[in-house]
Amino acid sequence: MAPAAEHTVKSYDAELTALSTTIAQMGGLAEAQLSSAITAIARRDVGLAGKTIEADTRVDALERQVEEQCVRMLALRQPMASDLRRIVSSLRISNDLERVADYAANIAKRSIALSQAPVARPSFAIPRMGHLVQAQIKDCLDAFLREDEELARQVIERDAEVDEMYNSLFRELLTYMMEDPRWITLGAHLLFIAKNIERIGDHATNIAEQVFYSVTGETLADDRAKGDETPYLTQEAVEEDSAAQTR
Amino acid sequence: MAPAAEHTVKSYDAELTALSTTIAQMGGLAEAQLSSAITAIARRDVGLAGKTIEADTRVDALERQVEEQCVRMLALRQPMASDLRRIVSSLRISNDLERVADYAANIAKRSIALSQAPVARPSFAIPRMGHLVQAQIKDCLDAFLREDEELARQVIERDAEVDEMYNSLFRELLTYMMEDPRWITLGAHLLFIAKNIERIGDHATNIAEQVFYSVTGETLADDRAKGDETPYLTQEAVEEDSAAQTR
Repeated sequence: MAPAAEHTVKSYDAELTALSTTIAQMGGLAEAQLSSAITAIARRDVGLAGKTIEADTRVDALERQVEEQCVRMLALRQPMASDLRRIVSSLRISNDLERVADYAANIAKRSIALSQAPVARPSFAIPRMGHLVQAQIKDCLDAFLREDEELARQVIERDAEVDEMYNSLFRELLTYMMEDPRWITLGAHLLFIAKNIERIGDHATNIAEQVFYSVTGETLADDRAKGDETPYLTQEAVEEDSAAQTR
Repeated sequence: MAPAAEHTVKSYDAELTALSTTIAQMGGLAEAQLSSAITAIARRDVGLAGKTIEADTRVDALERQVEEQCVRMLALRQPMASDLRRIVSSLRISNDLERVADYAANIAKRSIALSQAPVARPSFAIPRMGHLVQAQIKDCLDAFLREDEELARQVIERDAEVDEMYNSLFRELLTYMMEDPRWITLGAHLLFIAKNIERIGDHATNIAEQVFYSVTGETLADDRAKGDETPYLTQEAVEEDSAAQTR
């Protein structure tokens, strides 16, 4: 179908703006989802958790909308250079945002199981890490909307802080689980929640990398180390942590 | 740059075939990575684990190659209808395959920590689940290469089996951890390995959905239930499992 055959012929610029608006909307929702999930943990609010889980379908619908907008523009507008990069980046960013909302829904699900358990000290570290990652999501979206490569670079650099929090929280949770078997299930949920937040941080970094590529046409050298060191953690190291704690 | 200005002008069909070849290569590598990671666990083979971790960069490089091929074709060939769908799907599939290889590398990392711990019974269930998911990856790639929508549909249906294995393994692991605190770290690694394998299964499903869309132009109704029921698991339920086991 040629553009002229349509009822309303939007201009190319208007279509590009509409695409950015859908991404902004999706990003705003994903950020709100993360915020609600963290609040649901902090306040042990099962109702809020339920709403957060339900709202995930809205983000999924927006992802499909981004895909439709992109495919339509690719087919009818033959975009070149920076416009083409922006469209391809938008496809990838929508994929990342869908994942962010998915992780937020998973956190909300676990918060329901958590609300039935006794309050545990490590639960307090989770909101701190969550707020840090929420700021990362906000900033990478601002970088996208303002086409701000410098802000994108800052988001990428700050991911190390998130990783550090995750690594120490992971070890702390294992020592708690070791000391009291009644915390095993609670601890497992908190381990996965922490991992989900760390992954959301990785998606913020992915988005920032896409923004950098979209704006500059260049790919940042992928020299960032994988920040999650916990896969190498041995039982002995955790037992040493535990011994140090009780000393 | 117009196609005529290039040294070698490949035909459009040859470019589409080259794109499929890169995806096939990427898929083959990702599948091999998963296979190596599972073997590394089963044989406690630290050397193989190390190789699996290193090989992840090759999959990352292929993902960038897919992106370049896609962007180039979108810019120069103005693909329409099914070709356009195939290119957009290829972009998404390469993203999924990159994640699969990433999860495989994560499993390989954890296998190193596992190899230093005593052999635990739940470790045997992991390879079984791993082989099932490996078959899923193989089949969704075959579906992509043969443009076989029926095979794609089968992959999507079989995901429920993976989810079921994961749910029961998760509960089993928690009861082990509850019974012996010396298994806490080992158990945490196994929990994450099981989750990684379950996630790889989800990516196989994503790929199959993209294949279906690419071949038919239609999106499958997303009525599949989220198969991971573990986020709702309470400590009480796990204690009941444990009591039932020792009865």
